Amino acid sequence: MEAGAEGVLLIVKNYTGDRLNFGLALERARSEGMAVAMVIVADDCAFTAPGKAGRRGLCGTVLIHKLAGALAEEGRPLVEIVERVSRAAQHMGTLGVSLSPCCLPGACPTFTLGADQMELGLGIHGEVGISRSKMASADEVVTMMIDHMTDSSSQSHLPLKAGDSVVLVVNNLGGLSCLEMAVVAGSAVRSLESRGVNVARGISGSFMTSLEMAGVSLTLMVVDEELLRLFDAETAAPAWPITGRVPLTGRSRTIQLVQEERAGAERADTEGPGAVLSRRVLQQVCSSLLALQEELDELDRAAGDGDCGGTHTRAARAIQEWLGGHVIPDCPAQLLSSLAGLVQERMGGSSGALYSLFLTAAALPLRTQSAPATWVDALHAGIEAMKRYGGAEPGDRTMLDALCPAVQELEGLRSSPPGGEMKVLERAVQRAELGAESTRDLTARAGRASYISAARLRLPDPGAIAVAAILRAVLTSLKGGA
Amino acid sequence: MEAGAEGVLLIVKNYTGDRLNFGLALERARSEGMAVAMVIVADDCAFTAPGKAGRRGLCGTVLIHKLAGALAEEGRPLVEIVERVSRAAQHMGTLGVSLSPCCLPGACPTFTLGADQMELGLGIHGEVGISRSKMASADEVVTMMIDHMTDSSSQSHLPLKAGDSVVLVVNNLGGLSCLEMAVVAGSAVRSLESRGVNVARGISGSFMTSLEMAGVSLTLMVVDEELLRLFDAETAAPAWPITGRVPLTGRSRTIQLVQEERAGAERADTEGPGAVLSRRVLQQVCSSLLALQEELDELDRAAGDGDCGGTHTRAARAIQEWLGGHVIPDCPAQLLSSLAGLVQERMGGSSGALYSLFLTAAALPLRTQSAPATWVDALHAGIEAMKRYGGAEPGDRTMLDALCPAVQELEGLRSSPPGGEMKVLERAVQRAELGAESTRDLTARAGRASYISAARLRLPDPGAIAVAAILRAVLTSLKGGA
Repeated sequence: MEAGAEGVLLIVKNYTGDRLNFGLALERARSEGMAVAMVIVADDCAFTAPGKAGRRGLCGTVLIHKLAGALAEEGRPLVEIVERVSRAAQHMGTLGVSLSPCCLPGACPTFTLGADQMELGLGIHGEVGISRSKMASADEVVTMMIDHMTDSSSQSHLPLKAGDSVVLVVNNLGGLSCLEMAVVAGSAVRSLESRGVNVARGISGSFMTSLEMAGVSLTLMVVDEELLRLFDAETAAPAWPITGRVPLTGRSRTIQLVQEERAGAERADTEGPGAVLSRRVLQQVCSSLLALQEELDELDRAAGDGDCGGTHTRAARAIQEWLGGHVIPDCPAQLLSSLAGLVQERMGGSSGALYSLFLTAAALPLRTQSAPATWVDALHAGIEAMKRYGGAEPGDRTMLDALCPAVQELEGLRSSPPGGEMKVLERAVQRAELGAESTRDLTARAGRASYISAARLRLPDPGAIAVAAILRAVLTSLKGGA
Repeated sequence: MEAGAEGVLLIVKNYTGDRLNFGLALERARSEGMAVAMVIVADDCAFTAPGKAGRRGLCGTVLIHKLAGALAEEGRPLVEIVERVSRAAQHMGTLGVSLSPCCLPGACPTFTLGADQMELGLGIHGEVGISRSKMASADEVVTMMIDHMTDSSSQSHLPLKAGDSVVLVVNNLGGLSCLEMAVVAGSAVRSLESRGVNVARGISGSFMTSLEMAGVSLTLMVVDEELLRLFDAETAAPAWPITGRVPLTGRSRTIQLVQEERAGAERADTEGPGAVLSRRVLQQVCSSLLALQEELDELDRAAGDGDCGGTHTRAARAIQEWLGGHVIPDCPAQLLSSLAGLVQERMGGSSGALYSLFLTAAALPLRTQSAPATWVDALHAGIEAMKRYGGAEPGDRTMLDALCPAVQELEGLRSSPPGGEMKVLERAVQRAELGAESTRDLTARAGRASYISAARLRLPDPGAIAVAAILRAVLTSLKGGA
């Protein structure tokens, strides 16, 4: 007990052992002449008919610590602090849900749970909950939790009505990721607002954990202006989050998606012959990429972040959508510029940026003419832009290892080729495929795969595989239209 | 861009895709007349010889955000902010280690790792690290990490020498528990201090995560007073922790354990005949409890937090230690009071408090006499105290269900029992064992097990089993000494 302190407040979670031990401590301290008081927090909403032991003390206890701390900082007498936080504790409820048990260090899990099951109404010492059910979406689980917490037929419910203001605590029981916590927090705010409840403050984090338990608890405390002032009071406690002191309800949280304008009906009628061919080529490219998703993701998992297939799928879907709703420009330069904008916006990843740079640069030579030789110039310009911004050269285990050999072969288009232009295209595609395959033996020197030791990379580069597939699709559709 | 803002600073982690996409954004914003600058953070210490792509940008980026934010709040011009944070970024390093990969939602893990393996030098997009090794203790892992980060033969090392002041960031890659984070943070501070480095500030939490990856990264930034001032500057960013603004080094972090005084050598010589018997009884009780640890833990895992065996083991060890170093009082009241203090301090849990209450109350009648009938009174007094504070009655599935039937049987000691006192004791122990066994069919109404539905409790109560075992041990040792 610090010199000058008026007294000591024991904030005890309502568990038998805690009550007993802190009770002993209180009796002993009092017998030594200290001013000691005890507040027992019992915020658990799990049991509809709690037994002799009463409701358990759970994460709501943290809020009582915060309020009591703020009152103590203001210099309030011990008896007033006890009275005020006890009143606040009456209007508070907590319920937990988990996808896993926890293990005391060195011991077995405290219970077992199937992979698709969740446990509702847990305590914080690893004890099992009140019921087990099939896993559901965050929105469904949160709705079920708040329904249970506020169900007036339960003896341990929190009375909550439309118009009430609450502090919401979304508490990580230990093992959830930030992404999962954010999903649950979003669901909780939406669920409360849909009940007409004003979420005056919200905090999310690890406030009262059960070791590594992959679960979350929700705590609601009904508040007035006075309690909010205490909640907002400054503190030096390192585990207390910076709350911003502003209500969640009433803030705009949803990004307004810009509606894409659509050209619609008129499209096919007004398209020129070039556009018709472009449409066929792009459709073939898209379906080839969609068919490759799994293979590309698999290759990328070994080399990077496993999203190469997903990225190309996004691009393909974006192009398909665009084809469905737009007039395709007849001029190749315009077409490439449109595609550049589309992949930059919709594809994502470095691939999106690189394809966008490639298409933007390739469009330039095609502004005035579109002879086969100009297409070769366009491809060269695209490759140069990719090298400049991406910092890669052929041999660095990138898309360039498929693209560059193909373009080298396409040089044959500059003069009248002996076997015809299609033969040159055919050979170019074969060179791209060989080039892609050869990346198996290359050391990654650019892109994310360069962070991975060569010994672990024994599969071809997914970017190069995708480029070869695109070129093959272009060839197939041109042949079909020949 | 907010009205009145002097410019926009892009803080970019050095990954090819980030560089490309933010580069595109910068070019486009500049072409629209905005004042935009870019700082590329490359704090990764994993690669001893980084390739073309350079060092990756990792958790150190968060510190650059903090410093830049503080400078912007002070109204510094964009060009000065860029210059100052770029300089700070030169003196910063980060290294990660993990016990698991992560999964993009809906996708497979980005790599696989054996249960006893760890991966060193990871990025933040789920890519594998630079090496894999056998799991080791936190101290060993942290030492290895800081050695690697500061190894001057590596091209991406952080120059760090004794006398330097650093900011330490212990960053949860997503899936570690608070307990694990605290262990790593403690190891990191000790390891740095052992190198003569002054840990000026330390923060621990989830600052830059890789979804649910069960790993941690360490970031070190060498700081001077000026950088510390910026690090400490107030911010409204909700994810920034309250740091206390005080150095970690120099603070006393280890709880001073109070040395127990020991009576030592003289013990056995000065002990009376009662003490010799008490010593034998207590030794038998301790070895019985130690033999029961696994069984009690197992029973308790089904009913509570799985520490019942551990708690009783702690008590047994404490008593054994005490027997080894103290003169045992000849007076039973003194003995029970000593034991009450011992279990209160060393046993822990509600059992510790309950045994302590029991022994304290039981000591009272034995102050003046110790006839068999007085022992019966003592047991009754102990039971009353347990009921009063613990709130349980016989039939509530607690220790009382073993203790009460035994004491009922011991009433026979009040008059001269026909078959002798040992026969009464024998029957009392049998009643205790039957009582303990009968808790199988009882509904828990007190203690932690009361939070668990009756349907899940099909094993006897571990507390009752322990009481029966203690009584059996007392009987065995009394018989042995008869």
